[in-house]
Amino acid sequence: MAYKELDTKSVIEYLKTRPALVDILPDDDEYKASEIGDGNLNMVFIVQGKNKPERTVIVKQALPYLRVVGESWPLTRDRIIYETEALKIYNELAPEFSPIVYDNDYEMSVAVMENLNKHEIMRKPLVSREQFPRFADHISSFLANVLFKTSDLYLSSKEKKALQKKFMNPELRKLQEDFVYTNPFMEAEENEWNPLLDDLVKEIRSDGELKIAINKLKMDYVLKAQSLIHADLHTGSIMLNKEETKVIDPEFAFLGPMAYDIAAVIQNLVLNYASHFVHSKNKEEREAYQKYLLETIRDIWNGFAKKFDTLWQEHNDGDLSPNSYWDFEDGEKAFARFRQDYIQAVLRDVSGIGGTKMLRRMLGIVSVWDISSIEDDAARAQVERFIINLGRRWVLEKDEITSIDQLIAITEEEAKKLEL
Amino acid sequence: MAYKELDTKSVIEYLKTRPALVDILPDDDEYKASEIGDGNLNMVFIVQGKNKPERTVIVKQALPYLRVVGESWPLTRDRIIYETEALKIYNELAPEFSPIVYDNDYEMSVAVMENLNKHEIMRKPLVSREQFPRFADHISSFLANVLFKTSDLYLSSKEKKALQKKFMNPELRKLQEDFVYTNPFMEAEENEWNPLLDDLVKEIRSDGELKIAINKLKMDYVLKAQSLIHADLHTGSIMLNKEETKVIDPEFAFLGPMAYDIAAVIQNLVLNYASHFVHSKNKEEREAYQKYLLETIRDIWNGFAKKFDTLWQEHNDGDLSPNSYWDFEDGEKAFARFRQDYIQAVLRDVSGIGGTKMLRRMLGIVSVWDISSIEDDAARAQVERFIINLGRRWVLEKDEITSIDQLIAITEEEAKKLEL
Repeated sequence: MAYKELDTKSVIEYLKTRPALVDILPDDDEYKASEIGDGNLNMVFIVQGKNKPERTVIVKQALPYLRVVGESWPLTRDRIIYETEALKIYNELAPEFSPIVYDNDYEMSVAVMENLNKHEIMRKPLVSREQFPRFADHISSFLANVLFKTSDLYLSSKEKKALQKKFMNPELRKLQEDFVYTNPFMEAEENEWNPLLDDLVKEIRSDGELKIAINKLKMDYVLKAQSLIHADLHTGSIMLNKEETKVIDPEFAFLGPMAYDIAAVIQNLVLNYASHFVHSKNKEEREAYQKYLLETIRDIWNGFAKKFDTLWQEHNDGDLSPNSYWDFEDGEKAFARFRQDYIQAVLRDVSGIGGTKMLRRMLGIVSVWDISSIEDDAARAQVERFIINLGRRWVLEKDEITSIDQLIAITEEEAKKLEL
Repeated sequence: MAYKELDTKSVIEYLKTRPALVDILPDDDEYKASEIGDGNLNMVFIVQGKNKPERTVIVKQALPYLRVVGESWPLTRDRIIYETEALKIYNELAPEFSPIVYDNDYEMSVAVMENLNKHEIMRKPLVSREQFPRFADHISSFLANVLFKTSDLYLSSKEKKALQKKFMNPELRKLQEDFVYTNPFMEAEENEWNPLLDDLVKEIRSDGELKIAINKLKMDYVLKAQSLIHADLHTGSIMLNKEETKVIDPEFAFLGPMAYDIAAVIQNLVLNYASHFVHSKNKEEREAYQKYLLETIRDIWNGFAKKFDTLWQEHNDGDLSPNSYWDFEDGEKAFARFRQDYIQAVLRDVSGIGGTKMLRRMLGIVSVWDISSIEDDAARAQVERFIINLGRRWVLEKDEITSIDQLIAITEEEAKKLEL
């Protein structure tokens, strides 16, 4: 079917034509659709049965232009392909932690998927100090499974290249390359920052050592095709409740450094941690919640490292180094050291990437609601100053990092300097 | 035209049908073809005018099977595409140093190119101690231009991804991954080595530290899509004379670590250096030639480093870090340090990859004529022992290498232990 923009009426007619949906939306009921989401890049519809509302799906359709600007700003609709294909891989490798994809139709730029109506986006409940006791276990399982099973440790050489070719994603990668690693650190008209931080922002943009380190991290981002990464895994791309965690919106997916996704999650928890210096007026409540956040960070990394290593030991099926390569006296020890070195290198990358991402949120175009929702400029400036100093340290000290406890200690050390 | 295997008769008829060749092989002459090459993977014809023999081309056609085995060993004919597309890029970026591609026809798996009949393959004249005084300058220019201009330092983000997608080359990459980095270092039935080296070969295959280091280098080979590399740039892939140097046969080309090509050239000169301990009976002649080889190695690296840095300063056109990123007080210094760090990292990679490649030539399936032509097993064993010890040091000491002089010093140090 040739591309045609759907609306709340035509979407229902359209779904009736899709064989894959016969059992999901049987024709013994009528269905209604409502549009949700900001609809800037995509149309998003909730479709639900009138008599059996438990029969429900989300329909996502990519628009060929940025709606807020209008048809003058054309955009490739390919992003729905990258998003859907990544979700299907998640469905296969980490089915508990992703919405089910029921159907896709790339001519129409449409994907039909599970309606996560029992889950909420993670960002806001973190600001209201909600705790999700299973989250660290869930997200570390998701990360370990997806990142391991799309790497050369698990895939054959040819499978890996085929995956890489499928996820070239040049348009959206270019956005992240510019807006995460480059533009925030130089003069660029879209940059936005708190004017009370002019001095510090200037200092960062003139810090040669820091900028060299960030540019090396950018090279990794561009070149190191380690695993299929989500590449935008902030707390707005996670939907959850007390029992379940789901990763959504992987339209930026490509084969890049695996630490990027881990860093994104951890760094968003650090930003949330920082925001509570203002959001949480009650000191006791604040400290308890900040402690919970740091424990969550610790559990995410340690959980990831342990699960990843176990997967590797049990499924060393890739062509990188087959078990026979390690078949010699003391070979088991050497393999264990190789694995440890590998995971330690991921942790150093988490530090560097996490730090870079903290900085870009303060200096660049894309802010984060946890912080931007602090209305008092002066209070926000203090929190932002903490984040900038912390981000810089995570970048510059990355090569000394050997445990998550060190990253947490640096965070607490910088937090002590905050006097609000 | 559907695929059909050419012979010395049909190739002439075929060429007449090709519009691109009208001016190169005009129809006012008759042409004859002869087949050259081992014809194992490809048919290679020389076509020449009967009256004007200066009108001549090489016609290369990929076979769909390994001829020495027969039709039972099918092979993808895609390699002619990779070879031809890489040569066309060489024609554009380093035209002096590659044969001109006149025509290609991928349905027929055919490429038509310049006949390098004034040049010879480099390997044998190196064994007979011939000197090529312009070689270091030529090959370093070739390497600097191709490696710089296919990297993110020169290309836009999207151009780079398009190039990467074009050169996925999964079949031939898999061969190099296995036969350079993995199989020589474990038990594999195709491995061949001098039985007089059993002890040392066993030692290498049980050296955990070495194997960890080599496996990390393999990760780089697999993941680090830095530049378009030839990926098989030994002295058998170079044709030259005193005035000119031409790089041929880039069918393994893909986007990988740029040090790989530099290491291949340098490492082949080291193997040749080693071979003269037996090939050159006259000590004075031997020492003079070995000195020439080491000077050539020095000039290749230093020439490459200088030319690469100059290109970068003059054409920092890529998206990796635009000039405006370095536009701050002391930004020029920071950019210079970033470039230096980058080039130093390439040198460390040269050490590691060069060492790995020395080892694989001694332990794996692919030997090298400079050494294999030494008939006396005992004499060859001594030379091979030197190469193995040297290769191991280049790998294990790579992180301490900051100048080519250090690699040369290690080579001379190991050579002193040789008593023939």
